[in-house]
Amino acid sequence: MPIELLNKNLKSHINKEIYDNFFSDPYIYSLFPAGKLFRPLMVWSVTKDFYGDFDNNSSLIASFTEIHHTYTLIHDDMPCMDNDDIRRGRPSTHKQYGQWQALLSGDGLLNASYGVLSRIQGEHLGSVLRYATWALGPKGLILGQALDLSGIMTDSFNDLLLTHKLKTARLIQVCLVAPVIAREGISNTKKLKDLHRLGHHMGIAFQILDDLCELTDEILSEHESEVNPWPRFTELCATQLNESLSLIENFFNQYQSENLRKTYASYLKKIKTQVNGSENIIEGHIKKDLGPIMLTLDRLCS
Amino acid sequence: MPIELLNKNLKSHINKEIYDNFFSDPYIYSLFPAGKLFRPLMVWSVTKDFYGDFDNNSSLIASFTEIHHTYTLIHDDMPCMDNDDIRRGRPSTHKQYGQWQALLSGDGLLNASYGVLSRIQGEHLGSVLRYATWALGPKGLILGQALDLSGIMTDSFNDLLLTHKLKTARLIQVCLVAPVIAREGISNTKKLKDLHRLGHHMGIAFQILDDLCELTDEILSEHESEVNPWPRFTELCATQLNESLSLIENFFNQYQSENLRKTYASYLKKIKTQVNGSENIIEGHIKKDLGPIMLTLDRLCS
Repeated sequence: MPIELLNKNLKSHINKEIYDNFFSDPYIYSLFPAGKLFRPLMVWSVTKDFYGDFDNNSSLIASFTEIHHTYTLIHDDMPCMDNDDIRRGRPSTHKQYGQWQALLSGDGLLNASYGVLSRIQGEHLGSVLRYATWALGPKGLILGQALDLSGIMTDSFNDLLLTHKLKTARLIQVCLVAPVIAREGISNTKKLKDLHRLGHHMGIAFQILDDLCELTDEILSEHESEVNPWPRFTELCATQLNESLSLIENFFNQYQSENLRKTYASYLKKIKTQVNGSENIIEGHIKKDLGPIMLTLDRLCS
Repeated sequence: MPIELLNKNLKSHINKEIYDNFFSDPYIYSLFPAGKLFRPLMVWSVTKDFYGDFDNNSSLIASFTEIHHTYTLIHDDMPCMDNDDIRRGRPSTHKQYGQWQALLSGDGLLNASYGVLSRIQGEHLGSVLRYATWALGPKGLILGQALDLSGIMTDSFNDLLLTHKLKTARLIQVCLVAPVIAREGISNTKKLKDLHRLGHHMGIAFQILDDLCELTDEILSEHESEVNPWPRFTELCATQLNESLSLIENFFNQYQSENLRKTYASYLKKIKTQVNGSENIIEGHIKKDLGPIMLTLDRLCS
């Protein structure tokens, strides 16, 4: 099972970046037990689809994406950011260890993620690092977090898409594009652009579906009513979701990428499970028939 | 003047990593006007001394050290860390922009610092990145910050030295070692070890002298009395300072590194200016004759 392999590699990679000492607990607590490892799974899938094997460079990139993702969660949960006390059913890092411990362990994982990346062999490390820092730094993921926290995200549907693109899609793009850059460099621009676009639409669809799953309660919280785009931008959400899922499906067909298709289907199955049985409630919130969306999900899962 | 060049390069390098938008102000505010640029100056000095020129890779490393240093200051100043409202005579970043803005702009600069590094040309980027992330990540600078905030730093003189080594010396070591790795790789272990040791002793001397300069007030604050090692570990501080300064001087002589010597002398002159006229007050606090220390500083400044 790739999940076990990815989990084992993650442990081995992070253990090279930290000492076992008085400050190692927050790192291990935040990373393990690992979540769904969705991002490393994407790295594994794209590598298997394009090259048939899962080489050491891709294994490093897989761990990089999970460690980097975990640092963003630790900092996002802090009181001055989203102020979330619970993460994956347990106290978030700052609730478990305190605020400076959360801030520093996030900084530590951020540095460690690039430490893992530094072990990439071959001539393309510079291009991988360039793409990753562009995607995840002040022009990318960080700007997405700032758009979210500033409230700009909810100003319009375009601002919502921009935020999702930066905050969510950029890291998924790293999962899909970095393994190819590490193997081939940046000369095959067609393939890289297609993967970059795939990551964009996966990120957008991911967030729009995530927002849909937040509507399964009869009564929405005041916060949810304010920030959920579905009730306000119903048609725009449905149209964008449909377009993104179509483009994702086209990519799978065009590149015959069966592992990516399977990994994405297993994610969509979880979404379907969350929605199943609550269709009427969601339809009440968005005043729209969910049928066509569910049919598309069914097709992508089969 | 190298300072003007280093400032110009810093502006040019950071501008490639950020967009001009609603969230660019905290980056620019935190970086400019630049401080003494002590770390970039060390990069410039070691490169000039060993190679005669200041190439683009060293210029990138110089900006890397300043951007990375600035992120640590932004996060260190936050309420959950040292809670400092003032930095370089102005409101610290979280006082000027707010807490999430400080947290995110620190994260942004941390990512951006590795973005600058990714532009290094040649075959040694991997080794540079490996050394930098080791020095600045969970095994290095971050662990030093954790030792400081946990209070372990003040437990013993050895804990103090360990904290200074990690929190301060590691980044100075990057300034001295990374330019040589970028140019030559890691084969000349003698030179790299000597530079690594030089950075260690510069960091230690830097902090012990900094602590000495905190003793120029007749009445010490309660906090200063608690954390300043000089009154409690007077002989250990004096012996360590003397040993570190000797090793630094030996390096300058052995490698005939005149630019490093000049840059370090200009730093020591500032220390002397701060101590001058307050020798009696300091001697009262530490119950020890400052004469031999001042003589050593005089010799290194001449």
